[in-house]
Amino acid sequence: MGNTWVYEEKTFRADQQKELDAVFSLGNGYVGCRGFSEEEQGGLGRLGGIYMAGVFGRGKLKAWEGMHRELVNTPNCFSVKIRINGEPMLLRTGRISDYSRTLNMREGTLERSFTWNGLNGQKVRFRFERFVSMDDLHVSGQRIEVSPVNGNPDIEIAASIDADVTNLFVDTLLDRPVHPGLRHLKTVGVKSQIIEVKIESLPDGVIIAEGQEVSLKHRGSQIRGTDTNGESLISRSFKYKGIKGETAVLTKLIHVFTSRDGEIPPSKQVEKSMARKLEYSDLLNSHKSVWSGKWHSADIEIDGSDNDQRAMRFNIFQLIQACPSHDHRLSIGARGLTGEMHEGGIFWDTEIFKLPFFTLTDPAAAASLLRFRHGILPEARRHAKALWFQGAMYAWKSGLDGAEETEVGVGAYYAIHIISDISYAIRQYWEGTGDSDFMHKYGTEILIETARFWKSRAHYDPIRRNYSILAVRGPNEYGVIVNNNLYTNMMAAENLRYAIDAIGQMKKENPKAWSSLSQKIKFNAGEITEWKKIIGRIVICHDAKTDLYLEDDMYLHRVPFDMKRGKPTGKRVIDSTLPYEAMAMYQITKQSDVVCLMNLLPWKFTEKQRRIAYDYYEPRTAHDSSLSYSPHGVITARLGLLDDAYRYFKESAYLDITDLQLNTISGLHFANFGGTWQIAVMGFGGVHLENGRLVISPNLPKAWKKMSFRLACKGALLRICISKKSTEVTLEKSNGRPLELLVGKELLQFRLNGDVKTLKNNRK
Amino acid sequence: MGNTWVYEEKTFRADQQKELDAVFSLGNGYVGCRGFSEEEQGGLGRLGGIYMAGVFGRGKLKAWEGMHRELVNTPNCFSVKIRINGEPMLLRTGRISDYSRTLNMREGTLERSFTWNGLNGQKVRFRFERFVSMDDLHVSGQRIEVSPVNGNPDIEIAASIDADVTNLFVDTLLDRPVHPGLRHLKTVGVKSQIIEVKIESLPDGVIIAEGQEVSLKHRGSQIRGTDTNGESLISRSFKYKGIKGETAVLTKLIHVFTSRDGEIPPSKQVEKSMARKLEYSDLLNSHKSVWSGKWHSADIEIDGSDNDQRAMRFNIFQLIQACPSHDHRLSIGARGLTGEMHEGGIFWDTEIFKLPFFTLTDPAAAASLLRFRHGILPEARRHAKALWFQGAMYAWKSGLDGAEETEVGVGAYYAIHIISDISYAIRQYWEGTGDSDFMHKYGTEILIETARFWKSRAHYDPIRRNYSILAVRGPNEYGVIVNNNLYTNMMAAENLRYAIDAIGQMKKENPKAWSSLSQKIKFNAGEITEWKKIIGRIVICHDAKTDLYLEDDMYLHRVPFDMKRGKPTGKRVIDSTLPYEAMAMYQITKQSDVVCLMNLLPWKFTEKQRRIAYDYYEPRTAHDSSLSYSPHGVITARLGLLDDAYRYFKESAYLDITDLQLNTISGLHFANFGGTWQIAVMGFGGVHLENGRLVISPNLPKAWKKMSFRLACKGALLRICISKKSTEVTLEKSNGRPLELLVGKELLQFRLNGDVKTLKNNRK
Repeated sequence: MGNTWVYEEKTFRADQQKELDAVFSLGNGYVGCRGFSEEEQGGLGRLGGIYMAGVFGRGKLKAWEGMHRELVNTPNCFSVKIRINGEPMLLRTGRISDYSRTLNMREGTLERSFTWNGLNGQKVRFRFERFVSMDDLHVSGQRIEVSPVNGNPDIEIAASIDADVTNLFVDTLLDRPVHPGLRHLKTVGVKSQIIEVKIESLPDGVIIAEGQEVSLKHRGSQIRGTDTNGESLISRSFKYKGIKGETAVLTKLIHVFTSRDGEIPPSKQVEKSMARKLEYSDLLNSHKSVWSGKWHSADIEIDGSDNDQRAMRFNIFQLIQACPSHDHRLSIGARGLTGEMHEGGIFWDTEIFKLPFFTLTDPAAAASLLRFRHGILPEARRHAKALWFQGAMYAWKSGLDGAEETEVGVGAYYAIHIISDISYAIRQYWEGTGDSDFMHKYGTEILIETARFWKSRAHYDPIRRNYSILAVRGPNEYGVIVNNNLYTNMMAAENLRYAIDAIGQMKKENPKAWSSLSQKIKFNAGEITEWKKIIGRIVICHDAKTDLYLEDDMYLHRVPFDMKRGKPTGKRVIDSTLPYEAMAMYQITKQSDVVCLMNLLPWKFTEKQRRIAYDYYEPRTAHDSSLSYSPHGVITARLGLLDDAYRYFKESAYLDITDLQLNTISGLHFANFGGTWQIAVMGFGGVHLENGRLVISPNLPKAWKKMSFRLACKGALLRICISKKSTEVTLEKSNGRPLELLVGKELLQFRLNGDVKTLKNNRK
Repeated sequence: MGNTWVYEEKTFRADQQKELDAVFSLGNGYVGCRGFSEEEQGGLGRLGGIYMAGVFGRGKLKAWEGMHRELVNTPNCFSVKIRINGEPMLLRTGRISDYSRTLNMREGTLERSFTWNGLNGQKVRFRFERFVSMDDLHVSGQRIEVSPVNGNPDIEIAASIDADVTNLFVDTLLDRPVHPGLRHLKTVGVKSQIIEVKIESLPDGVIIAEGQEVSLKHRGSQIRGTDTNGESLISRSFKYKGIKGETAVLTKLIHVFTSRDGEIPPSKQVEKSMARKLEYSDLLNSHKSVWSGKWHSADIEIDGSDNDQRAMRFNIFQLIQACPSHDHRLSIGARGLTGEMHEGGIFWDTEIFKLPFFTLTDPAAAASLLRFRHGILPEARRHAKALWFQGAMYAWKSGLDGAEETEVGVGAYYAIHIISDISYAIRQYWEGTGDSDFMHKYGTEILIETARFWKSRAHYDPIRRNYSILAVRGPNEYGVIVNNNLYTNMMAAENLRYAIDAIGQMKKENPKAWSSLSQKIKFNAGEITEWKKIIGRIVICHDAKTDLYLEDDMYLHRVPFDMKRGKPTGKRVIDSTLPYEAMAMYQITKQSDVVCLMNLLPWKFTEKQRRIAYDYYEPRTAHDSSLSYSPHGVITARLGLLDDAYRYFKESAYLDITDLQLNTISGLHFANFGGTWQIAVMGFGGVHLENGRLVISPNLPKAWKKMSFRLACKGALLRICISKKSTEVTLEKSNGRPLELLVGKELLQFRLNGDVKTLKNNRK
C-alpha cells in the first residue's frame, strides 16, 4: 500500500536503531552514507558510517598477498548536537512520538521526523532531511527543522564535521555491543569550517578535506552562529529562543574532496567549491533531476503488488547509488559503501550479479566498471606470474590496485572462476552495446590475458587425454576444493572462445589497433591453436544416464546430506551444526553453482537439462549465501515454475529490508540487488543476450498483472511492457540502424522511434 | 671422535646461545628443562624454559573445538645472579674463554664451564652442573663451582626460583628478537624458600609449588646465606671473599609438586620432600643409576662412526627423557617438554614414530602412553557425535583432555588417519608384548570404538559399489584434501581387522571381561558383519599397469611439480616459492605417505611394489617435514638401497643437532628421534612385528662395522648383534616360554637364558 517510492520505518526502538542503518543509506558512487541519526552521541551512533569509494586504510587481516586494506569510516559530517532548555536532545524509547524515518527513493533523500518529549515537559517537533548529491558528487546537503510544540524553549544547536571516528567494526558473529574498529584518521589541518584529515594507517594514506556551510533561519532572519575549530571537529553553533509553533530551519552544505581527486590539494578544492555559494534548494533540485533521469531508464514498474514494487525500487535505488561511474579506477564492493563487511573488496559478484543491470540500463556505467578491471591488469599479470601461471590472474578479492586481499588460507588460490566471470561480463557488454571501441581499447586485452591464464592453469592429463582444471572452488564454496568444477571449466572454455572472437573482430574492424595490441602483449597466432585444443577437450562433468550436469567430478560420489538436520533453522549450516571443513564430504551446495551457470549460458543447455539440474540441485542447496536466491529465481522463471520463482524473488528482493541473513547491519548485499533485478528482467522478463541479440521470453508471476521496464541495447532504448497475455515492445530511441530482437519465438525488427510490436505470450 | 656419550658445544657465541637451548634439554617425563644459562639476565635467557607434563595455560589460538591450551613456561628454578667485585657475571662474547657446554647423556647431566674475564682484569673459572632426577621425579639438582683464577675477589651469589616469567613464544617465522609470550603464572603464596604459583589464564588452573635448598661451601665450611622472599621470586644469597685457586661450591636441590599430583596441596608436598634433607650427591647417584638401567635396555651400539654413535644416543636420550611413563594421563607432545611449538599438543606421530621404540625397549612406558588414549575416549566419543559420526574420533591435536585443539580452518576434520594410527600402535603393542591384560582393560575398547568411527566415516558409494573415505588429509599434508587416500583407507581397514581380532581373542581368553565390555559399549555382533563388508570393498588406489600404489584417487592426474623450481634451497616449498593452497594442484608429497604405509604394513606389499613406490614417490617428495626422512630411511634400508638409507639416517639423526629445519629453537623433534631409532632398528636391523612374531632381517650400511641393541619381546629380553656378515641373537632373559623369531628366512626358537644363535646375513 501507499507510496511505492518510499521505504519507511514508523516504529522507533532505541535498541534496534543501528540494525537498519545500512538500509537507509544514501550515496552517489563517490561517497556512501549510512542512515544513522544525526543527533546521536553514544556508541556506534556517534561514529556515523560514511565511506568513500577508493578510500582505504590498512586492514586488520593478514592478506594472502600484498597489504590488506579496509574501507575507512570518514568524518561524520552530519553530526549535530541539540539542547533544549539545556537538556540534550537524544532519541530514547518512550520520549519519542510520531516517529518516522523515510527513504525517498524517487528523489534520493532521507527524511526523519519525530516529536521529542523532554524530561521537563518540553515538546519539540523535529524534521531532518539529507541528500548526497547525484549532480555534484562532492557536495551533500542537510536540513533540520526545529518546531517547539509548547512553550518557548532556549535552543542550542551545533552542526559539526566530526573526525574523531573509528571504523564501526560490526561483526555480526561477535556479541554486541561491539568494540569499535581501527582508527584510521589523523587531523592534519583545521581552519574555519574546513577540516583536513589523513589516513595514517597507510604510508601513502589518502587525504580528505571537508568543509561545511551552515546557516539557521528563524522567523525570517538568519541567526548568527559561532564557529569552533577543535582538534578533530569543526562546528558552527547557534543559540536562540524558540517560539511555540515557529519553525527554525538549519541548512548545511558539506563539500568533500580527497587527494585521489587530482593534483590540486583537497582543501583548496573544498575552498573553491564553497566559494560558489551554492543554495541548498538549487542543489537539491539538480540532485532530484539527475535521479529523475536515472529512474527513467532503470525503473521497473510492477502492477499487482505495491510491496513488490517498493522492494524492486529499493534494490534498483541502492544499485544506482553504489556505482562509481565517474571514475574508472573504481568498482563496487560486496557491500558497496554501506558497511565494512568484506572491507570494500571487489569480488566476482560485481561482474556476474551487478553488471547485467548496468549493461542493459546504463552502459556507460558498465563500461566504467569494466575499465576498473583493465586498470588492474598489471597486478593481475604479476599475480599470475608469482603463482607460476601466465596471462592475468585476477584476485578473488580486489582492493584498489588489484592485489589479492583475501585472508591467508581462505582459498583465494582456488576461486579462480572470477577470471572468466570478468571475461563473461566483457562479452555481455560487447553483445549488449556493440561498443567496439571499448573492446579495442580494453576488452580484447583482458580477454587475451585471461585466456592465457586458463591455458596455463588447465592441465593436459596424458592418461585421460583431456584438459582438467584441478583444485578449484566454484560458486558453491561448500565444495571447499574440487576438480573439474563444471562452472569453472565451461566458463574457462567460454573465456577462450571470447578471446578468439574478439581477436577476429578486432583484426577485421581495427587492424592497426590490433597490430599495436598484439605487439604490446607479444601475441602469437599459435596461442589460438592451443586455446582451441583446450576448448575441444576440457572435462565437462555430465552424467549421460540421467542427462544431469555435474557440479564437479565427485559430486555424485559424495555423502548425501541431511538438510533438515544440518539446517534446522534459517542459520547457515556452518553457523549452526557442522564446521566448514565437514562440507567437503557431503553432497551439499552452499549457493547455486550449476544453476547459476545455466542462466549465464542458457543456449548451452536444453530446457529439459535445466529442469533436471534444478530438480537435482535444489534440495541439495543450502542457500547459505545471498547469491543463491536469484539464480534459482531466474532458472525457475524461465522454466515456468512461477510459484517457485516468485518465492525466490521475494527472498531476494526483501533480503536486506527484512534482514533475512541477519547481517544487514554490516552493509547491504549489492550482488543480491543485481540478482533481484535479474529475476525480474531476466527471469520474469526472460531477457538474455545471445549471439549479439536481445532475447525476450516473458514469464510473469501470478501475483503481477503487468511489468514494464526499459532496456538499453546497442545505443537504442526499448520499452518493454509485459502483461499476462502479451508483450509490447516499443523502440523509444533508435540508434539509427535497424534493431533485431527475438521475442518469444519471433524475430522482430525495429527501425524508427516509436515502433511498437505486440506479441501474445507463449506461456499460458 | 672422542666420547660418544657426550654432546658438546665448544664455541661460545653470545648471539647464538639460545639457538640450541632445546638440544641441551634435560627431563624426566615430569618436567623438561631447556639448556639455558643459569646466570643470564636479559631477553629470552631470563625466562629460562621449563615445562611440566600436563601443565597447560589458555593458549592464544582459536581452537577448532574446546579451549586452546599451550604448555606453560614454569618458574625458572635454576636462576642465579653472580657478582664479582660488584660486576655482574654475564656471558659476553670476548669475555669468555675455555667455554664448553656438555650434555652427558650416559648420566643425564648438563655441564657448563668457562673462564670469565671481568672488565677490571678479574678472572674466575666457573663450572655449572645440573640434572633433573630420573629417580625422584620431583627433585632437580644444581651445582655451581666458582674458582678465582687471579686475585681474591668479593663474590656475591644468589640462587633463586624466579616465577616472573612469560612463555618464550619463539616463532621462527617472525623476525627476532621476538616478543615474549603469554604470562600464565600468578604467585599465590610465598614462604621462606617455597613459592606457590597458579596458572591464572585457566579457570581450573594448575597450582605449582617449588622449594629450594641451597648451600655454599668454601674452604671446607658452609657460608651463611640470606633469604629473600619477593613477590614472584625466592632467593638465597651469599657473600664471601674469594681466594685464588680455591673453589667454592654451591649446591641446590629443587623440589616441585603440582595440584595434578594428588590430594595433598603441592606446597605441603614440597615441604615433605624438603624435610627428607636429601644429599645432592646421593640424589645424583640414584639418578645416574636409573639412567644406567635405561641405557642397558635402550642403547644401540654402533661400531664404525663415533659421530653416528653419539647422534644415535642423542636421539634415544631425548626420547627417554620425554616419556611421562609415571602417569597414564599424559603422553608426549610433538616437541616434548623442550619448547612451545605445537603448544604441547599430541599428534599421530606419538603412535607411529615414537611408540615402536617404547614398545620394543620399554613396554611399560608404551602401555602408559597408550592408556592416555584410553583416558580420552569419552572426549573422542563426544567429538565423533558432534560431527555426526559414531564411535571415537580422536582429535588431530590433543591437549590434556583429548579435545581438538587444532586451530580453526587448518584441517583437523580431514586428518583422521590419527584414529587408525592409535589402533595400529595398540595392535603393535599387543603383538610385541602379548599383554592381554592391557587389551582386555583398554586396548579392545579403543579398537572397537575406532572401528565404529570408520564404519560411520566410510561411505558406501552405490554407483561404484565400494566404500570410499572422502575428504581426508593423509600424512602428505600437501594433498590438502583428497579422497580415498591409500594410507587412510588401508589403515582404516586394518583398524577394523584389529577390532575383530581383539574381540575374538578377548572372547576366548576372558569371556567375563568381554561380556562386561560388550554390555558397557552396547556392542552387537552385526557390527562385525558390517566391518567385514567395508574391509572387503574399501577403495585401494593402485595402478595395475605399473603396479604402483597410489597416494589417492587423483595423484596420477595432478600437475607434475618442478621440485627444483619449487624448492631451490633447503626451505620448505610453502615458505619459499608457492603458498600452501597451491599444493593441492600438484603431484607433490610433503612427507612420506605411501612409503610410510609400506613400512607399517610390509607384509601387504611385495619387495617389487615397495621399490616401484619408492622410485616413484621419492622425486615427488619435498621432505618438508621432520617426519619424512625416517620412513624413506627404513624402506631403502629394507630394499638394500643402503647408501640412500644411510643418507636418510644422517638427515634424521642429526636433524636437531645441526638445526636442519631451522626451528630447533622452538623445541626438539621427538617423532624424528623415534624415526632415527626406526631407521637403525627397523631399517638397518630389518626388525618388524608380523603375526605376533619378531622378524629380523639386517641391512647394515657400509659405514658401520657392527650394530648391537636389545629388544624386549613378550616379556623376554633379546640382544641382537649385527655385523657385516652375520647376525647373532642372544636370549638374555627368558619369559619362561619358548620364543620364536624369524631371522632372515629362518625360524629360530629360543628357550633358555643365554641361548645364542648366529646366522649369516642374506645381503652381501
